[in-house]
Amino acid sequence: MSHVYRLVISCPDQVGIVAKVAEYIAGQGGSIVEANHHTDANNGWFFMRHEILASSLNMSLHDFEKGFQQVADAFDMEWYISDSEKPKKIALFASKESHCLADLLHRWHENELPGEVVCVIANHDDLRSMVEWYKVPFHHVPVTPDTKPQAFAETEAIVAQYDADVIVLARYMQILPPQMCRDYASQVINIHHSFLPSFVGAKPYHQASERGVKLIGATCHYVTEDLDEGPIIEQDVIRVNHSKTIEDLKRLGRDVEKTVLARGLRYHLEDRVLIHGNKTVVFDS
Amino acid sequence: MSHVYRLVISCPDQVGIVAKVAEYIAGQGGSIVEANHHTDANNGWFFMRHEILASSLNMSLHDFEKGFQQVADAFDMEWYISDSEKPKKIALFASKESHCLADLLHRWHENELPGEVVCVIANHDDLRSMVEWYKVPFHHVPVTPDTKPQAFAETEAIVAQYDADVIVLARYMQILPPQMCRDYASQVINIHHSFLPSFVGAKPYHQASERGVKLIGATCHYVTEDLDEGPIIEQDVIRVNHSKTIEDLKRLGRDVEKTVLARGLRYHLEDRVLIHGNKTVVFDS
Amino acid sequence: MSHVYRLVISCPDQVGIVAKVAEYIAGQGGSIVEANHHTDANNGWFFMRHEILASSLNMSLHDFEKGFQQVADAFDMEWYISDSEKPKKIALFASKESHCLADLLHRWHENELPGEVVCVIANHDDLRSMVEWYKVPFHHVPVTPDTKPQAFAETEAIVAQYDADVIVLARYMQILPPQMCRDYASQVINIHHSFLPSFVGAKPYHQASERGVKLIGATCHYVTEDLDEGPIIEQDVIRVNHSKTIEDLKRLGRDVEKTVLARGLRYHLEDRVLIHGNKTVVFDS
Amino acid sequence: MSHVYRLVISCPDQVGIVAKVAEYIAGQGGSIVEANHHTDANNGWFFMRHEILASSLNMSLHDFEKGFQQVADAFDMEWYISDSEKPKKIALFASKESHCLADLLHRWHENELPGEVVCVIANHDDLRSMVEWYKVPFHHVPVTPDTKPQAFAETEAIVAQYDADVIVLARYMQILPPQMCRDYASQVINIHHSFLPSFVGAKPYHQASERGVKLIGATCHYVTEDLDEGPIIEQDVIRVNHSKTIEDLKRLGRDVEKTVLARGLRYHLEDRVLIHGNKTVVFDS
Repeated sequence: MSHVYRLVISCPDQVGIVAKVAEYIAGQGGSIVEANHHTDANNGWFFMRHEILASSLNMSLHDFEKGFQQVADAFDMEWYISDSEKPKKIALFASKESHCLADLLHRWHENELPGEVVCVIANHDDLRSMVEWYKVPFHHVPVTPDTKPQAFAETEAIVAQYDADVIVLARYMQILPPQMCRDYASQVINIHHSFLPSFVGAKPYHQASERGVKLIGATCHYVTEDLDEGPIIEQDVIRVNHSKTIEDLKRLGRDVEKTVLARGLRYHLEDRVLIHGNKTVVFDS
Repeated sequence: MSHVYRLVISCPDQVGIVAKVAEYIAGQGGSIVEANHHTDANNGWFFMRHEILASSLNMSLHDFEKGFQQVADAFDMEWYISDSEKPKKIALFASKESHCLADLLHRWHENELPGEVVCVIANHDDLRSMVEWYKVPFHHVPVTPDTKPQAFAETEAIVAQYDADVIVLARYMQILPPQMCRDYASQVINIHHSFLPSFVGAKPYHQASERGVKLIGATCHYVTEDLDEGPIIEQDVIRVNHSKTIEDLKRLGRDVEKTVLARGLRYHLEDRVLIHGNKTVVFDS
Repeated sequence: MSHVYRLVISCPDQVGIVAKVAEYIAGQGGSIVEANHHTDANNGWFFMRHEILASSLNMSLHDFEKGFQQVADAFDMEWYISDSEKPKKIALFASKESHCLADLLHRWHENELPGEVVCVIANHDDLRSMVEWYKVPFHHVPVTPDTKPQAFAETEAIVAQYDADVIVLARYMQILPPQMCRDYASQVINIHHSFLPSFVGAKPYHQASERGVKLIGATCHYVTEDLDEGPIIEQDVIRVNHSKTIEDLKRLGRDVEKTVLARGLRYHLEDRVLIHGNKTVVFDS
Repeated sequence: MSHVYRLVISCPDQVGIVAKVAEYIAGQGGSIVEANHHTDANNGWFFMRHEILASSLNMSLHDFEKGFQQVADAFDMEWYISDSEKPKKIALFASKESHCLADLLHRWHENELPGEVVCVIANHDDLRSMVEWYKVPFHHVPVTPDTKPQAFAETEAIVAQYDADVIVLARYMQILPPQMCRDYASQVINIHHSFLPSFVGAKPYHQASERGVKLIGATCHYVTEDLDEGPIIEQDVIRVNHSKTIEDLKRLGRDVEKTVLARGLRYHLEDRVLIHGNKTVVFDS
């Protein structure tokens, strides 16, 4: 993978944005590896993402950013630049079920995940050995109804200690406290084991079996204070029929869950997801 | 397609059902073209469907049925036999949107649909010419808030006049009165333009766009008094993203709607759907 | 749908293309509705498509084109601009099978297809009545081994008479002569009833059944002199199993064929397909 | 999962098979958990699979088998009974790529795979540590052009030592010698990284990129002497487009490979796959 800078922009739409941005990039010698635009005609908002070859710039990233601030000011942009060689630090939260955690750890171990797994925090100790094989620090923080405030204080302290950029709830099975949702807004990614907005809340495979649906699914979304209501990043489904028991649904669903979570997380790690209101723009060119 | 009898059975599960049924069929020389069984372990119910080559029986269908009644009584069966040469009569209900209606009429015209379209009833007159090209009687029965009782009385009279076995709501856009839902229980098939139970009710594509889902779908289900809550026969989805407008969702959704409705209807016409409670067993071997 | 101009460009990649193009568009007041770029790193080629709101330009299309020629010359571009209010003229070629033809005619009739169907040419007369219901001229040009040259001369004359921009082989079942493939390079779209490159040539469903594949598919591609080898525009598949007969495969396959052809044709009509060598770039943002 | 016996039968089709088999099962008190039939009308062959609740039989499995032989003889059946409590022993063959191996080991570790992994044999030593974490014996048997005969003799000896019932080529990258293919006919399962019969042989993702297909896939099949030509068990695909590099295809393909292999292997382990000629019947009720 080439060393690139990712320039991510959103702003009110108007004529000339692309020209000014492209002109600025070209002016510094920037070679564009990938470019995506989107205009949301409903609310007049413009979204843009560029991958610029780092080696092509005739100046430092710092100077490039400083210079770009003028373009940004002219168009009232929200923007940032990320550096592919400074991958995001990932804290994985888990419980007892291992399929999502094992899948992400394996992808990371094989250099497939464009991020750095810095720690695993789990409310049970079951997965310690697996995590430690990957040489990733494992923190067991039990959560009980009584100890919830202390447990999440400890959890947040661990996340802070590792300076994690993104928290992934890999079937964590605990509801984060509202304050933590706000503190880490747009930084916590969950995998819900249904095709949202169907079957919010607990036991979605039981709900799916009860309703007799012919497809089951999974949803990767940002966590907000409203359970299972945050912006959706990625979804997928698999076909089932009357012969499948709830155990079958769980088994088939696990394959969808882990794939959807890995795809959604990848989009986030590569800065492909732009949040606007409760929806996402996902640039997967 | 061969001339077959379809023997469809459901009953409490117990040892020996298959043996007795198979023994009875074989005893009359019956050659089994297709056989499906299913036991629902949750509620101890057994479901079975056989296709028997008509020409292989050494007796009339009437005598075959009479003889089978003894087997059925011994196991407390609900059962029926249908004859592939007496295809079900279909009344299509439509409004202004033509995609589902055109698709079903075309399939029927090309001998792909194992049923007989006997009439179209529409609350608007727009699709008359298309329907009449297929030489299918077209009945325009307008429905307004004030005339609803009379309109549905007229509608039921037309259905009765054609002796229709199944009513297909091909984007009919009207809610059937509760009494009609009860009168035609398990005989009215609807296509809902969402992946139920997501987005029940009106304007599902607007709801889907609002929620920012990454897949949209359609659901073919039996109509009950509870709107969009009846037993699901078939579902499918298609991938979308942030760039799709509501008009795009509608366009992409139409392809899913017509395909899902045609598949669901086909299952029904071939007696592949067994309803139990609010769920279906669909034998699509 | 808004009135837009579609600016489609391909050229050797270099720094500054986007800036110059965007600058030129913005300079004439052009509001960009949709923009897509792609760089093929393997061969150093750059592809670009813009949709520009027609009403936003402060000059005529003619003057806009004249001015753009300077940008194009500087970067050695192949380019063209199309006008969404001058939809492409479509000649549909058919034989006896109606599913693709009926599907396209219906979409066009419902204003879903961004093009104008100007005529149908068929080597059998069977579908005349259906076509004429749509008020589309139907030309019956039989093709026999002996009359092939004359038949295709007549066919080409008809296409010329209607000034068609694109020929769609909607299950036409005849192989176009090499000269015609060359004359209409990148203008003839075929639907092949397999997932190419599997099962080229005749009777792909028989081949698929013979091989025991678990998915069957369809491929929409440009026609070249090499049968079934032209650039692929769109493909899709559907799941099958051992219980499906060849008749079942044909029936299931028809749904894939018509959907894939409609999608592929739509991409072409909206100038979303850029051909490079034997591959396509399809901008479906 | 309940303790079941799986009775798997294939024989020439005739009237009365189901009756006799069901009668025999019921006569011994056998409660049928799952039953599947299929008649191949092309070649007049009949296939059947029953799952019988072990605890429901009023005799030993040995006596049940002895008694069944008479039914089998009457209909010229090929048949066997497997016992879900005697899971098949699996030898996994691997090379350097870990995704399929890691996926299968993890499923096995989580009790999801209805079989027993007895050893891993690899022609490189890279994956030893991962395998040994699972407490599975790891055998490094290098294969070079010069040492091929000895290497495969050693390989076969290891398989024999563990008394393995099935060999899984989890991206093994070596071609088994013809004699070994014959010795282990219907017992060796491979995952090929393309949607066969497209792209047989080496570097299928390069071939797919070259041809410009819009979907890539994977195929799980039994290994025969004819490379990539054995009976297909399972296949699936994933959508790609022009923007995907060969590295992207490999990454996306890995997810399809591991899922398709796991599904195909599961079918085999549960005796759901019946081979006839070069095709499979897969009973996944």
